[in-house]
Amino acid sequence: MRATDRFGERMAVLAHDWFPDEGKMMKGVMRYGDYEFTGIVDHNHAGESSGDYLPTLPDVPIVERVADVSEPTDSLLIAERPSDGTLTELQREDIRAALANGWDVLSGLHRRLSDDPAFSTVAEENDATIHELRHPPAETVIANGTAHEVDAQVLLTAGTDCRQGKMTTTMELVEAARERGIDAGAVATGQTGIAVTGRGVCIDRTPADFTAGFVEQLVHEAAEEFDLLVIEGQASIIHPAYAADTIALLHGAMPDGIVFCHHATREGFRGWEAFDIPPIDAYFEAHRAVTDPLFETPPVVAGSLNTSGIEDDQDARAALEEFEGEIDAPATDVIRFSAERIVDVLE
Amino acid sequence: MRATDRFGERMAVLAHDWFPDEGKMMKGVMRYGDYEFTGIVDHNHAGESSGDYLPTLPDVPIVERVADVSEPTDSLLIAERPSDGTLTELQREDIRAALANGWDVLSGLHRRLSDDPAFSTVAEENDATIHELRHPPAETVIANGTAHEVDAQVLLTAGTDCRQGKMTTTMELVEAARERGIDAGAVATGQTGIAVTGRGVCIDRTPADFTAGFVEQLVHEAAEEFDLLVIEGQASIIHPAYAADTIALLHGAMPDGIVFCHHATREGFRGWEAFDIPPIDAYFEAHRAVTDPLFETPPVVAGSLNTSGIEDDQDARAALEEFEGEIDAPATDVIRFSAERIVDVLE
Repeated sequence: MRATDRFGERMAVLAHDWFPDEGKMMKGVMRYGDYEFTGIVDHNHAGESSGDYLPTLPDVPIVERVADVSEPTDSLLIAERPSDGTLTELQREDIRAALANGWDVLSGLHRRLSDDPAFSTVAEENDATIHELRHPPAETVIANGTAHEVDAQVLLTAGTDCRQGKMTTTMELVEAARERGIDAGAVATGQTGIAVTGRGVCIDRTPADFTAGFVEQLVHEAAEEFDLLVIEGQASIIHPAYAADTIALLHGAMPDGIVFCHHATREGFRGWEAFDIPPIDAYFEAHRAVTDPLFETPPVVAGSLNTSGIEDDQDARAALEEFEGEIDAPATDVIRFSAERIVDVLE
Repeated sequence: MRATDRFGERMAVLAHDWFPDEGKMMKGVMRYGDYEFTGIVDHNHAGESSGDYLPTLPDVPIVERVADVSEPTDSLLIAERPSDGTLTELQREDIRAALANGWDVLSGLHRRLSDDPAFSTVAEENDATIHELRHPPAETVIANGTAHEVDAQVLLTAGTDCRQGKMTTTMELVEAARERGIDAGAVATGQTGIAVTGRGVCIDRTPADFTAGFVEQLVHEAAEEFDLLVIEGQASIIHPAYAADTIALLHGAMPDGIVFCHHATREGFRGWEAFDIPPIDAYFEAHRAVTDPLFETPPVVAGSLNTSGIEDDQDARAALEEFEGEIDAPATDVIRFSAERIVDVLE
């Protein structure tokens, strides 16, 4: 669902030692990105085909090294963001090889590749750009409180915790809406979404005072182009560490409605299990309390329930019914079932 | 009220063309900072004495240039943060002169001095440090949700808008508490507070995901040293642009109580006048909604009302009485009257 050609059309993926189990960015971009994938670079599976391992994603030839990608290529996506932030020597060599080819490189790493002369020099010499997707532009962007003025309908995915499917819900909902002829666009606020859509800002890495400002700017820009915007939410308004992201998204986007995301079988905050996830009403109350004095509190128009922890489809449907009662709106699991039920409420 | 010797004991102030009307940082640091001020550098008022212009602050000789500061000096404070971020050639020359003397330089500028080789080279050659007070350390610090575990009593100054006196309330309250023998310490979250206390992190410039984390870290560190912590608040939980700061302070500090700050005569948000400041209850409700599911909602223990827009003391007292009714706690104007009334509730 690219809206821009910022990263080109033809993309290779650097996946040495990550393929097929790791590579979260790779999987998100291959699932939702409208790119022509010219090769997956992984020395362990060279000569094979990605579809044999990841059957729901585009089938792409796996090659030994960047030099073995045979199709013309515009950019190289680094498939993963290793938690310790370090790349292997093989990975580093192939990033340099890509830059030497004049390919752009898309990095979701915490540490900027461009701070490393081993990369920045090759990039400069070959007129290649390193896109540091985790890093916001070095600009001062302060919210004016004007997002409510846009003509487009604005929905925000907001939920009860991190990593429950807000990016996935955003992308699935936009794709389903487009299939129904709605001129919908995703507004990306995290690295994978940015790689998918060709624009956006990593809100969780933005200086606190500019978070709402960048969101507002993204909303104004996207509203020029689309009739329906779905803003990729981050974290949750009640969270021990990351609530700043969410309040900035609410104030910056001033959405018309919320698609409320929840994980059916999670009891404590992921990574902060000492804290129980509170009843859903507590989130609604918090959303209302921080928005109502500034703009009309966005109603929850639909729900997105992650039922990946429930084995049986019938049990998943039962969980969805219960969730619909709690949020008083139609809900679905966008992966297990589809986003259709959410699109229904938009028409 | 220095708690550390990070910036030394003897401080000169660079105030060319800012003295006496501008120089917000200078005034805050001269009011609350426990430094020996060795000189104010301002070519316009050289030979005069600062006390003739700013009678409530320490009386300091004004000199023409950095070279004219006659006392031994450890650091140079840049008095102002010009809104366009640019320094005059004279200011730049004297910053270089200070660094050449081996003095540290304290900058609250948005743009890092250290990114400018004209400064970084001199600093390096003379073993001088440039302290970029507006910039958080380049570390990944994520909140664990543990601030409620500290032994110290933790108060947070939170309020209805920006620039209403949260830093001032914090410093006045700590000073008043110390005079009563309470082992109190301020936790600085903005540039002036950092210059005053010798530590802290500029929370509004911290990447959103680390805001609560740095606050939590500061609380744990300060709790090792003091019995009562007063955390300098930022912005407000209801604000068109900056609420991310406030929610991070609430979650990172998990305070035992709130000193609620308000500006008596302000009707719209400062700089966002299209938005009316809502009734105070709306803030209490928002604080409750975002904290109660994670920890015990901190009660408002006292109020700090900025009555600078009210001419008559009797009218100011009437406004305070009304404010006390609204917040259901004792309140004062810490500048017009004193912070005593707040300290009373702590004992």
